[in-house]
Order: sequence, then structure tokens, then C-alpha cells
Amino acid sequence: MSTTIRTTATGTGTSMAPVVPTTGALTPLGLDEVGITEGFWADRQRVNGTATLAHVEHWLEREGWIRNFDLAAAGTLPEGRRGREFADSEVYKYLEAVAWEIGRRGGDDALESRFRSVVDRVAAAQESDGYLNTRFGRPGQGARWSDLEWGHELYCLGHLFQAAVARARTSPGADDGLLGIATRAADLICEVFGADGIQSVCGHAEVEVGLAELSRVTGESRYLDLASLFVERRGHGVLQDIEWGRAYFQDDLPIRDAEALRGHAVRANYLAAGATDIAVEHGDTGLLDALRGQWDRTIARRTYLTGGQGSHHQDEAFGEDFELPSDRAYSETCAGIASIMFSWRLLLEDRDVRYADHIERVLYNVVATSPSAAGTAFFYANTLHQRTPGESSPDDEVSPRASSSERAPWFDVSCCPPNVARTLASLAAFIATTDDHGVQIHQFASATIDTVVGGEHGGRFRAELVTEYPRTGVVSLRIVEAPTQALTVSLRVPSWADDARLVVQTASGSRDEHEVPTGYADVTRAFSAGDVVELSFSIRPRVTHPDPRVDAIRGTVAIERGPEVYCVESVDLPGGDESLARVEIDAHADIEEASDGRLTVVLRTRPVVDAAWPYADGFDAPGDADPFTASIAPYHSWAERGPSTMRVWIPTTRS
Amino acid sequence: MSTTIRTTATGTGTSMAPVVPTTGALTPLGLDEVGITEGFWADRQRVNGTATLAHVEHWLEREGWIRNFDLAAAGTLPEGRRGREFADSEVYKYLEAVAWEIGRRGGDDALESRFRSVVDRVAAAQESDGYLNTRFGRPGQGARWSDLEWGHELYCLGHLFQAAVARARTSPGADDGLLGIATRAADLICEVFGADGIQSVCGHAEVEVGLAELSRVTGESRYLDLASLFVERRGHGVLQDIEWGRAYFQDDLPIRDAEALRGHAVRANYLAAGATDIAVEHGDTGLLDALRGQWDRTIARRTYLTGGQGSHHQDEAFGEDFELPSDRAYSETCAGIASIMFSWRLLLEDRDVRYADHIERVLYNVVATSPSAAGTAFFYANTLHQRTPGESSPDDEVSPRASSSERAPWFDVSCCPPNVARTLASLAAFIATTDDHGVQIHQFASATIDTVVGGEHGGRFRAELVTEYPRTGVVSLRIVEAPTQALTVSLRVPSWADDARLVVQTASGSRDEHEVPTGYADVTRAFSAGDVVELSFSIRPRVTHPDPRVDAIRGTVAIERGPEVYCVESVDLPGGDESLARVEIDAHADIEEASDGRLTVVLRTRPVVDAAWPYADGFDAPGDADPFTASIAPYHSWAERGPSTMRVWIPTTRS
Repeated sequence: MSTTIRTTATGTGTSMAPVVPTTGALTPLGLDEVGITEGFWADRQRVNGTATLAHVEHWLEREGWIRNFDLAAAGTLPEGRRGREFADSEVYKYLEAVAWEIGRRGGDDALESRFRSVVDRVAAAQESDGYLNTRFGRPGQGARWSDLEWGHELYCLGHLFQAAVARARTSPGADDGLLGIATRAADLICEVFGADGIQSVCGHAEVEVGLAELSRVTGESRYLDLASLFVERRGHGVLQDIEWGRAYFQDDLPIRDAEALRGHAVRANYLAAGATDIAVEHGDTGLLDALRGQWDRTIARRTYLTGGQGSHHQDEAFGEDFELPSDRAYSETCAGIASIMFSWRLLLEDRDVRYADHIERVLYNVVATSPSAAGTAFFYANTLHQRTPGESSPDDEVSPRASSSERAPWFDVSCCPPNVARTLASLAAFIATTDDHGVQIHQFASATIDTVVGGEHGGRFRAELVTEYPRTGVVSLRIVEAPTQALTVSLRVPSWADDARLVVQTASGSRDEHEVPTGYADVTRAFSAGDVVELSFSIRPRVTHPDPRVDAIRGTVAIERGPEVYCVESVDLPGGDESLARVEIDAHADIEEASDGRLTVVLRTRPVVDAAWPYADGFDAPGDADPFTASIAPYHSWAERGPSTMRVWIPTTRS
Repeated sequence: MSTTIRTTATGTGTSMAPVVPTTGALTPLGLDEVGITEGFWADRQRVNGTATLAHVEHWLEREGWIRNFDLAAAGTLPEGRRGREFADSEVYKYLEAVAWEIGRRGGDDALESRFRSVVDRVAAAQESDGYLNTRFGRPGQGARWSDLEWGHELYCLGHLFQAAVARARTSPGADDGLLGIATRAADLICEVFGADGIQSVCGHAEVEVGLAELSRVTGESRYLDLASLFVERRGHGVLQDIEWGRAYFQDDLPIRDAEALRGHAVRANYLAAGATDIAVEHGDTGLLDALRGQWDRTIARRTYLTGGQGSHHQDEAFGEDFELPSDRAYSETCAGIASIMFSWRLLLEDRDVRYADHIERVLYNVVATSPSAAGTAFFYANTLHQRTPGESSPDDEVSPRASSSERAPWFDVSCCPPNVARTLASLAAFIATTDDHGVQIHQFASATIDTVVGGEHGGRFRAELVTEYPRTGVVSLRIVEAPTQALTVSLRVPSWADDARLVVQTASGSRDEHEVPTGYADVTRAFSAGDVVELSFSIRPRVTHPDPRVDAIRGTVAIERGPEVYCVESVDLPGGDESLARVEIDAHADIEEASDGRLTVVLRTRPVVDAAWPYADGFDAPGDADPFTASIAPYHSWAERGPSTMRVWIPTTRS
């Protein structure tokens, strides 16, 4: 447990940020307060805004998922409805992404017009009592709420609420009507699922987090109360049992009794995020402690090196402790995003650096891995070991979720592309926070910060964050304007940065330099324009070993550098695809830094007897395994050069 | 490829054996020719006959799967139908098992009466044109053949045919009518799916193997022709694509083009078995070569140490080459049985000892593992690593397929219990074969053999096979009666028996002893009553390493002894469940043989830092890992002492 400085300093429900608690250690900053200007994430935000959003809208139209709303409005459903039961939610996630993007850009007429056009089509499908779903409730369709296990009605509404919240925060007072659509739907479910209503929950958690934020935006406590009812009901076997067990939708154990996240990894993290919102708002320390414990155990025993979560293809679920197979890693993109949602809420509440460290790990190694460089193809699953190249995905075909070595433009279950889009569009909100005493920098990107700090006696704080991270380990915060009172500026020192130094260079010429441990490095002083706080640490490559209980990767190491996990890809090996299965690394050999973030390592291709039976008293083939140097690249950049094989964990050379 | 002695010596279609080709290197012997008398497999046959058959019938009645036929006869379907789409097939597999059991016992009035009673109920459900299936074709049900991907209609008929074949061979001329039921159904599908009929196949191969044997029993070539059509049609995308791809039901590649078994492991092996039948009957060497190549690659790269097959829970499917995770090993019991079916057919055709070696491996480590000692609970999946004990399965509850560390009495998908029952009841047929020149012993069990050998100039051959295998490596064949001409008696020398010796002790007092290599050890002479051929080899424990490309078990070894794979089970560790995750073995330390097949090994429990993040530059905790001795037991005997954890592959101590 961290030592948290609990304050009452928080934002308002209309801050331009995805999560705005009314209490907690830290106050989030909105997209109007932090803007990413250049570098790793700015590049991705630009691609997201210029290519991904249009790509997502194109596919939503092409697959008929927006048109489902038109059919609902025309009264012609169910005939012609396309997509899975949760197709509505992808439209809402797209709207949420566009809302953040409009906020990020500070307005964009063309985007605004596209946004309104989709909202109008959604609005037309809402029924007079507030019900909104294209899959249920009409003649020829299942009755409303008749399939809570798999119907995803409340799940879809959760995403509607998040979209409406994003819109309300980025374009307060806009007359498009999305917030009204959301509150009418929320009012309906308060009646239907309230204390005297249906005593059950949705098979896919999400409405909880949507209701909590909708409550924060509107001030309507009934929404939070309903979210709380949903959280407390789940875990008592209120849903039907299924082959994989009720753990799949976290209905196996009350949330206060569980020791780790389990079951479907997206469901588990969305639920935990929603429960954190409720615990924070209610000051429910028992629930918060349970959630912190679940986070700890999940990170310590059920998370991949990349920060990815979910070991099973079968049920997209967490495995047991230390069950983290590399070559069947599911590590769904959405699970990574959901894990950020959970972690960010705990960070705002606790100011514990471990949450920020994990968010960084997931951002660089899951969120950045999913989309292609062009922003128009995506990984749904993010394996850590690709054994066969697979076939090239045609650019214009819907793909199965997790079969190829290449990214696909769209999926039958296409939750990941719009989820990536909304995350990247709102990413600036995860860079920095404030509290009564100052400003905290959690993620490193060149950015501008313009906010108010120091409580009622404080004032405007403007600064420029400058860094080439993750290519270098130097992060400078240049103060542009600060209130006269003393402030504390805190910069995160990542968990692996064991040689970090902090330099404070004032405009007046004074210079102070000292070593700083991992955690948050604090500088308290009365800042003036021109003062610079510079954090620096080396980003030398690291050789990482697994806990011996992670059986699937025994005898291997991974290479990390800064926040980035690296991988060996067959296109960089002289022996190509097949040789990847026999490659070994000398874990003690030097690793050299090459250009553009690549590293040069010493590998060997082990000669192996190709036996008729793969179990014997030995497999060493005659012949030498001559060392050679190979270039390796960050994991997030793999699979951009045609079908290939790849591995993150590299067997070590036997000495 | 083996050097095969191809002969025309074969049995007749009415031999009392499951597989009776009209040509091939070896002639199978029937249950009237070989009987297992005592020892490992006799014990299991006794439990199967006294407990398992009654258990299976009880559950078939309890779950309503036999009653479905009553409802069909009464015309009240679909209301009240219970079970999955393939429930009919379990009734047929039960009938097949009972037919073999009646043959094995040489008649049993009570069993005969139970058999006839179930046949009568099946008969009443058959429609006038021969159609037989309780799930399709009636008002309120799907149309016949309308769901070839998932409907399993032809699959069910395949099992009906196998049951009818077993009955015809074990009780020739019986008036119960089962053979007539089968041929009427077969005649119907010859019309419906023949050259001018529906140009498709069943999503689950099985009808091919059933049709081939039915053709052998009846002499009706149309059945074989239809089987051949089914085999050749598959692989051209005749079934609808599914999320996991058409490889799931082997509709991705023509069978002649495939290089390995792939997709659903039971489907793949059933198909390969049926294709082998067709290739043998048609003398289709191209198809046979393709099948041999698929067998080779599958054994070399896609099979567990236990002989089990199927790496994926998601689709019960083979993984890619060397994708053999221990802790998510699916290794379905039925896939093991199906692999025996495929291998046995190739053995009969080729006389290649590798097929017999593999059959032994699967018998001891998959088929013997599935049923409990009492014969009333079963493993559906056969994991090689159980990480958590799981919960005790109630004796009277249907279980999910693969969730607990304990065997379950029955499953929603309950293919495995009756599949084990039919295999054990017919097991004697896999012990020995003949050819024009003599007798071959493939599997070791105390047994009587009474057959005719030596072609038209030959005569009666009677012998007693005596062994305590697998507790000892001594197998004696005592000749009771032999024709006067010279014969060749061949005994399999298992692939791991590198010190085998063969002694021929004649009744007249001569003695000849010599070393024999692995493969078949041949003794050619004119045998007399009282002559004894004794094969002996040591069954000392072996330390087995994996091919380094099997990533999931790098840095571990397994212990084998004779045909049995061993495992460490937590109930044998002083540290219990949790310590199993940290146990290590000194791969060079002596292994001692204890009583009753158990072994004593030297283990250490590695101290491990319980870190907040499971990837770092090291995990060694302070403290010594003192060695201790532990008792380990054959894998097939695990999970008989309450919930436990278990592992086959044991990490080796770092030196």
C-alpha cells in the first residue's frame, strides 16, 4: 500500500477528462489543460485523428452497424440487422472517440458535423420510454432484458453513457442531444433494474463505469446508486451458469471477497474500474482495499511482460496464477485498455506510482502495438510469440479475432479498433494531475500544461514538458507561469530507472542536482517562469528474467529498454521464419543501441536433431551454433513487414 | 517408412475385431482368439465390465438420451428431447461397448438382455426410409441434413454403424436387428449423399470409418464408395467457414495435400482412420503415403509425452508444430482413442513398430488415465500440469469438460466415458496379429491366444502370454499348440528398451539367448508345445528431455518407466499444493524404484521471492533448497486422493 496524501482537491464533473472523481488524492487534468505536442504519442494521436477515426466510421457503415439504428427508427427491424449483439456499442465508442478528438483539437467543423450526423441517427432509434438497443424488444426480436448473460444491452448503454460524458465534457452545452439520449436511457434502467426491479446484472460489465461518470457529469445520484447495486449484486450467482463457469462474468464471487481478477479479462477490468468509481464516491474503504488487493495479485501473477492480460483464447480470460503462456497469449487490446481504466482510477485515488508504471507499460506495449503504423489495421489479440507466419490479411476483409500474424482492418467482434481510437484521442488526460500542493507528471511526452494549482490561494500554472522519450531518458519541465506560492512539482521515476537524477535549474541561475529513487521525485519551491526541472535516467537495455513459476517461459529472457519491450522478428534473422524456433541469446553478452530505437544483440541458431519423437535423452545436433548479431525492435513495431514469426522471450544459450 | 512385408493374408469381415481390412501386412485377431487374463489391463477390463458399462447406461437413462428414441417413436419430439445434437451417438457407443463385452465374455444373458432392450428402443425410432436421428427432421426440428457443420447426423450414424459391426462380429446371426437398422440407414445416405446427392460432408468425421467397416461386414461396396466420396470431398471448402477456420473440421485442405493432422483432434484422427480404411481397400498408395506423412509429422511435433493430442481448449484442436503447453494441455480422451484407431490401421497395413509403440503410449497414459480406479468417473481432458486443486466434483453432477483436477461422472458432452468403455471391452484385439508366416505380439498383457496361422498349410496355434508388465520387463510366450511347419513369432521390443534380450527355451531342452534391437524381435522355428519365447528388458526409470522447440517445457524433464509416464502430485509433497509450483528435480540424481510401481526421486522446493511484478533481473530468495525424497507415481493413477496439483514436467535444478 502506498502512503497516500488524501485531499479533497478534485476537478469538477465537467473537466475535459474521461474520469473525474469528486474526491481523491489527485485531480485529473482535461484535454483543454494538457496537450501532447510532438513525439511518440503525438504521432499516434495524429494518425488516430486523420486515419483511424475515418477508418472506423467507414467500417461501421460498411458493416451496417450504424444503419441498424436507421432500421430501428424506420420500424423495420429485425430484418436487415447486421452485426453481433453488441454492435451498437462500437458506434458509441466511435462517438466517444470523436468527442475526445473534437476536444483535443479544440473544435473541428467537419468532425463536428460527422459526429452530429451519427448522433441524429442514434437519437431516431430511441424509443419513447428511453429504451435504446437495436437487437432487442421489437416483434421478432428477443424481449428486452431477456438475455442478460449474452445480450449486452446494459453493456451497450454503458458505452453510450461514456460517449455522452465525453461529449458533455468536451463540448459543454452542445445542442446535439447526446446527453439527453443517455439520461433518458439511464432513467429507464434506474426504474427497470433499481432496488425493486430486476435483481440481476449484465453479463458484460461496463454500464457501472458509464453510470458512475454520467452521475458525475449530471450530479444525478440515482445513476451512481444503480451502478453500486450492479456491483454488489454480481458475484452471487445471479446469472445463469455457463460452461466456463460464472467466473467468466465475475458472477462467481462477491467483489469484496475476490482476491484477483479472473474470468473474461475485459469484463473483469471494466467491472473493477466501475467498482473503484463507486468506492471512491462512497468513501468505501473496504471495497477499495479489496480492489487494491485484486490489482496487486493480478499484476504480480496474471499479467504479461507487456502489461497485457488474458491467457486464454477459449474464454478470453485470465488464467490461474503464473499461467502466462507466451505463444497462446491472448492479451486482448481491450483488456489492456480496461486495465488502464482500472489503474488510472486507483492512481487518482491513491497517488501510488505503481499504477502509473503499469499504465505506461500497457500504453507502450499493448495500446501502441494494436494499431498499424497507418492506423487502419489492428491486433485484437497481442501474442508474445508467433510460431508461424500465417497468411496475409486482405485489406478489405473482416478477420477472425486472433489468427494471423498480421493486423486486420476489422473484426466480426470489432471492439478493439474504436477502443484504441477513444484511448488515443483522450491520452493527454493521462499525462499529468494536480493536487492542493502542486502538479504531478505521470507519463512522459512533449506537452503543454496550462491549469490552476494550489487550491484557493493558488493560481495559473503553465509549463512545457519536453522529451524525446522513449528514445532518451531526459524529461524537462519548463515553467512558463506559476503562482507565487511554493508548489511541489512531482515527476514519476519509472520502476526500472535506478540511476535517475533530478536537476532544478532556475531562471535566476541557481542549479541543484541530486539522485532520486524510483517513485515520484518531488521539487518544492516557489517556481518562476523559466525555471526548469529536468529528470534524467539511462535507458540502457535490460535483460529481464521471469519468475520461475511462470512455467511457459522458463529458461528465457526478454530485452526491455525504457518502457518498451523488445522482440525478435524473423524478418530480421538470416535464417528466416524457421530459425526463430531455434534462436538463443547469450544473456550476458553486450547489447548495443542502434538507430531509431533498434538494438543489436548476439544470437545463435541452435542446431537441433529433427527427431521422429520430440522427447528423448537429448536433442543436440552436431555442428556449431556460431554467434551472429541481429537487430531487434520494439514489440509494438512488429508485423509491419509482411507475415513473420516473432518472439518476446528468447531462450538463453546453455553455457 | 518401414520395410513392410505385404501379404494378402487377412481376416474375414466377420472376425471378432474392430478393424478387419481385406488386405494388409497383418491380420487382426478377434476377441474369440485373444483373451486378456490378468494384470494391468485385465483389471481395467473387469472394472469396465462390472462398473463402467452399468454407469454409462445409468447416465444415458438419467440424462434422457435413450429416452429421446422413445419420444421419437411416440412422435412427440421435439418436446422433451434432451442432450446435445450428438446425444444419439453416446447410445450407439454404449451399444458398441456392450457388444464387445458380450464377445469378450463369450456371452452373458443379463448383458444380452440389456443390449436388446436398448436396440429395440433405437429400432422403434427409425423412420420408414431408414432415417434415424432424434434431433432433426420432425415438425419443430431442423430439416434433415440442414446443418452439416454442427448437426452431427452423419457422425451419429457412423457410431451406429460401428455398433452394428461390433454386434455382427461378436454375435453373428443374432436376431436383434441392429445390423438391419444400420444398413437401412446406410442405404439412405448412399442415396442422399451419393455421387448425385448432396455434395458435402459431416462437420465431424466418423461416418467414414463406420461405413468402411460396415462395408467389410456386409460386403456392400456402395458403403465404401460413399466413405471414399466423403473423404475426397472434404478439404475443398464444402462446409461453411467458422471463426476458427475450416481446419477445425479438416475442410481446409484436401486430405492428400495436408502435411499434418490439424484442427479438432478427434475429428482429425477419425477422418485419418477412415481414410486409411479406404486407402487400404482401394490399394491407394498415394493416399496411404499422405496419411503416413501426416502421422509422422503429428507424432514428431504435435503430440504430448503421454501420447495425448490437442493443445487448445478453445477448439479442442491441435496447435502448431511444437505448440504443446503443459498446463493447458487438452489431450482429450477421445482424441487419444481416435489416435489409436488411426495408428492401428496403419500398423495392420505396414507392420511398422512405431504405430504399436504409440498405441502403447496412448493406452497407458491417456486411456488408462481417463477412468477412475472405480470406473465411474472420467477425465475428458488430460492435462499434464494441474496448477490449482480445484473443487471436488460431486458424484452425481454433470461436469464441464475440463475444469477440475478430479474426474467427473458425466459431462454435457459425454463422448469420453462410452469411448473408453468400447476401447477397453475390445482391447484384446490389439494384443496380437498374424500373417502368413506367424504371430506378432504388439502389446504386453497376460493373455491366451488361440488362432490359426501359416496360411493354407498352417494350423492351430495356441499360446499363453505371461507377464507382469509394466511392473517388470519380462514377457513370456509359452506355446501350447503349434502347426508342424516353421513359424515366425515376433515380439515388439519397445523403442526405449535398449537392452532387450530374447531367450528361446524349447520343451526339448535347448536354449538360445541373444540381444535384440528395438522393433520386432523374430524367432523362426518349428514350435512345439512347451516351447517358451521370453523377451526381457529393464524397466529402469528414464529421465526424458523435451525437444528445445517445445517452448512451454524448456528447462524441465519428465520421468518415464517402461510405457508409463510419471508425475509429481502435491499430495505426495510435504509442502502440499503450493510447493508444487516451486519444485525442482536434480536430473542426474538416482531414481529408486519403490513398491507398487512408485518411484522415489530427489526434489528441492526452490525458495522464490514473492515479487509485486513477476519479471526482473532475478528471483532467487535467500535460504537453502534442501533436497528431500518424494514418491512419485504413474500419471494414469493421479487424482485419486482428493483435489491436488500435479505436474508431469519437472523443472531441473540449476547447478
